[in-house]
Amino acid sequence: MDILKDIVKKNNSKILLIVLDGLGGLPVRDGRTELELANTPNLDNLAKKSATGLHIPVDYGITPGSGPGHLGIFGYDPVKYQIGRGILEALGLGIDVNETDIAVRGNYATVRYENGKAIVVDRRAGRIPTEENRRITKRLQEEIKEIDGVKVIIKPGMEHRLAIVFRFPEKLPEGSDAINDTDPQQVGKEPLIPKGENPNAEKVAQVVRKFIEKASEILKNEQKANYILLRGFAQKPNIPTMEEKFGLRACCIAVYPMYKGLASLVGMDVIEFEGSSIQDEVETLKKVWEEYDYFFVHIKKTDSYGEDGNYEGKVKIIEDFDKHLPKFLELSPDVIAITGDHSTPSLLKGHSWHPVPILIHSPYVLGGTSERFTERECLKGELGILPAVKITQLLLANALRLKKYGA
Amino acid sequence: MDILKDIVKKNNSKILLIVLDGLGGLPVRDGRTELELANTPNLDNLAKKSATGLHIPVDYGITPGSGPGHLGIFGYDPVKYQIGRGILEALGLGIDVNETDIAVRGNYATVRYENGKAIVVDRRAGRIPTEENRRITKRLQEEIKEIDGVKVIIKPGMEHRLAIVFRFPEKLPEGSDAINDTDPQQVGKEPLIPKGENPNAEKVAQVVRKFIEKASEILKNEQKANYILLRGFAQKPNIPTMEEKFGLRACCIAVYPMYKGLASLVGMDVIEFEGSSIQDEVETLKKVWEEYDYFFVHIKKTDSYGEDGNYEGKVKIIEDFDKHLPKFLELSPDVIAITGDHSTPSLLKGHSWHPVPILIHSPYVLGGTSERFTERECLKGELGILPAVKITQLLLANALRLKKYGA
Repeated sequence: MDILKDIVKKNNSKILLIVLDGLGGLPVRDGRTELELANTPNLDNLAKKSATGLHIPVDYGITPGSGPGHLGIFGYDPVKYQIGRGILEALGLGIDVNETDIAVRGNYATVRYENGKAIVVDRRAGRIPTEENRRITKRLQEEIKEIDGVKVIIKPGMEHRLAIVFRFPEKLPEGSDAINDTDPQQVGKEPLIPKGENPNAEKVAQVVRKFIEKASEILKNEQKANYILLRGFAQKPNIPTMEEKFGLRACCIAVYPMYKGLASLVGMDVIEFEGSSIQDEVETLKKVWEEYDYFFVHIKKTDSYGEDGNYEGKVKIIEDFDKHLPKFLELSPDVIAITGDHSTPSLLKGHSWHPVPILIHSPYVLGGTSERFTERECLKGELGILPAVKITQLLLANALRLKKYGA
Repeated sequence: MDILKDIVKKNNSKILLIVLDGLGGLPVRDGRTELELANTPNLDNLAKKSATGLHIPVDYGITPGSGPGHLGIFGYDPVKYQIGRGILEALGLGIDVNETDIAVRGNYATVRYENGKAIVVDRRAGRIPTEENRRITKRLQEEIKEIDGVKVIIKPGMEHRLAIVFRFPEKLPEGSDAINDTDPQQVGKEPLIPKGENPNAEKVAQVVRKFIEKASEILKNEQKANYILLRGFAQKPNIPTMEEKFGLRACCIAVYPMYKGLASLVGMDVIEFEGSSIQDEVETLKKVWEEYDYFFVHIKKTDSYGEDGNYEGKVKIIEDFDKHLPKFLELSPDVIAITGDHSTPSLLKGHSWHPVPILIHSPYVLGGTSERFTERECLKGELGILPAVKITQLLLANALRLKKYGA
C-alpha cells in the first residue's frame, strides 16, 4: 500500500461512507437473509447502478471485533494496526485517548482480606447494577484525580465494568503498556501485582500499583465492589491519520462512543450532535457538508438487533435506513459507499466471518449487475469479493483522487 | 496468519473434508467438463444449499504436484512448506519418514567400467520391468541394512525407480540434505560423487558414498540394473501439526501411500483398512467417527483417469462418488467440504493450474447460488475464487472453532 502515498491527490470531491454496523446476514426465514427480507426500493435502485460486491473484513473465516472491522474499511490493515483492549474500552465509554495515555479495562470485584492479603471472592462483584457502579465510580473519581503527576480518568461501564485512563504528562515510548493483567482469573487467589516488562512499562506499573492501593482503601467498606481487577493495559496505536495517508479531511457522524473513538484514532473529526436517529445523522451531515472531503456515517442498530437474534428488528432498521437514503443522496456526494464493518447474522446472534455486501456509486462504475442490495445479488457485482482494506483506495479512485501509477 | 494461533478454540464439532484428486476439468464433449457430463443428483442437491466457489491451489497459473496441492487444502502455505522430492518419493512408496531421515529418489541405471571408472550407458537401465526391480531391490535390502550405524531402507517403485531412506540415530540439523544429485543427466559421463554443501550434509554424503560403493558391488553382475543414480536428497520439512496449528485431532482415510504420507507429515493419524473402494472408505470413516475432529478422505481415481485422458472413466468415478455421498452425509458432520487438490483435465492428461470447485456445507452458509457442483456453477458461489490455503480457516469458522479477532 506504499504506492498510494505517491499518487494521492486532492480535489473538491465528497466521499460519503455509510456503515450499517453488522450489516451482512444469513438465511433466517424462507431461506432469505435480513437484507433479502427487507423492503428496500431505494437501496435496490442504487445497487442497480452501482459497483457491488462483498468485502472480507480481516481474512477468510475470521470474525472481527468492531475495532478491526472499522479499521479495515477506513483503509488500515487491521492485522498491522491492533487496538488494545484497554483503548477500545476507554473509547467505548467515551474517553478520548491520546499518545500520553495508558488505558485499561477494569472489573469491580469482591475480595476478602486474610492476614492483610486480598483474596478474590467474586471477580465481578456479583455483577452490581450499573447504577451502583456509577455511584461508586463517581466517588472514586472524586477522590483519585491524580497520582504522582499522572491524571487518572475513570468511567463506569455496564454492571461491574469500568475503564481507567492514566494520562501521563508526556508521550510514552512504545511498549510502555507491557504490563500484566491483575485479574487472577480464579476465585480464592490473590490479585496479581501489575509489573512492567521493561523499564518504561515499570514506571507506568508503579503508578498503577498506587492506584490500586488507593482505590482499595476508598472501596474497603463497599459490600461487593471493594476491589478493582485490571486487564488489557494498552497505548493508543501509532497510526497515521486519514489526512496523512489519503489526503482526506475526514469526519465522523456516529452515536456510540466506541465508533467515535475509532474514527478519532485515524484522525477524523468527531461531529457532536443532539439525538440519535438516522434523521438526526442526516441533518448533522448536511450541516458539515461543506467542511470535509470524507464523511463516515455510522448506524448502529443493525448490529444490535443482529446480536439479539432479532431478525425482524434488523429488517426494520434496514427499511428505516432505506427510507432515509434519498436524503443522503440529495447531498449529491461524488462517491457514496454503503456497507457494514462485518456481518452480524441474527442466526448467529453475534459477529461473524461472512463477507459483507458493499455498493459503491460514482459516475465511473459499470453497474447493471445486481438487482438488489443483498448478499446474493452483490455476489454478481463488479467488485467481486475483496479485502476491506482495499475499499478506501477504491473510493479515492472513484473520486478521481488518485494519480496514475507509473508512466 | 499468525492471528489464528490466538483465536483457535476447541469444541465437539466434526469436520469432514473429501478430496477427489484432480477433480477440476475442462470441456471434453459437447463443451462440457467431466463434472458437467456426470450425473450427480446428490452432489448437485448438496451444492444448492452450500457455500460454493473455486480454489487456487498455489497461485494463478501454477500447476501443483500432489504435495503442494494437499498442503494447501490442509491449511499450509505450499510455498513456505516445501516437501523435497526424496521425501515425496519415499512417502509414495510407503516409507514412513521422520526427523532423523534423509530420503532420496533412485534410478537403476546401466554403467560400463573404463579403467575402474563407471560410465553411464543407460540412465534408466532400459526401464527394467517392475518385477525385476522388486527382485533386485529385495536382494539389495537384504545385503545392505545399515551403514556406520545408519539404517538403510530401500523400496522399489515402478520400472527402474526406487526410494532410499537413510535413517540416522538422531535428529539431523536443518540443511543436512544439501547434497548434489549423482545423476549426470547424460550418457557417456561418470556419475557425480555426492558431496555435502556443509559439514552436516557432508556427514550424510559420506554414508551415501559408502552406500553407492556397496550397491555397485552387489549389482555388478546384473545385466542392466548394475548401478544406482540418486536425485533429490531431502529431509522431512519442519512443519507444525494440525493439532498445533488448528487444534484439530485429524485423521486420514486414503488408499495410496503418498497421500497417507502427506497427511502424516501434518500430524494426521493414518487409518489403515482393508480394501480400496469408496465404500471401504465410508465404512472406515464410520468406525473412527467418534475419535477425531477432522477427517480427510482421499479418492484417487478421478486423477488417475484424468492423467490417462480417459474422461469417461473420470465421469464414472465422479458418479460412483455421488452414489456414496448420502452415506457420508448420514454421519451428520457439522461441516463438510468437497473439493480436489488440483485440477486434472482429461484434455491435458495431467495436473493443471485451473481453479478447483469446492463446496462447504454447514448451518452457517448462504447457499442458493449454484444449481450443480461444476466448475461453472461454482463460479456463482459465495466463496468466490479463493486461495486453497484459506480453506481450513473457513472450515474452522463454520465449525464455530474460531473466536472473535479483536474487540
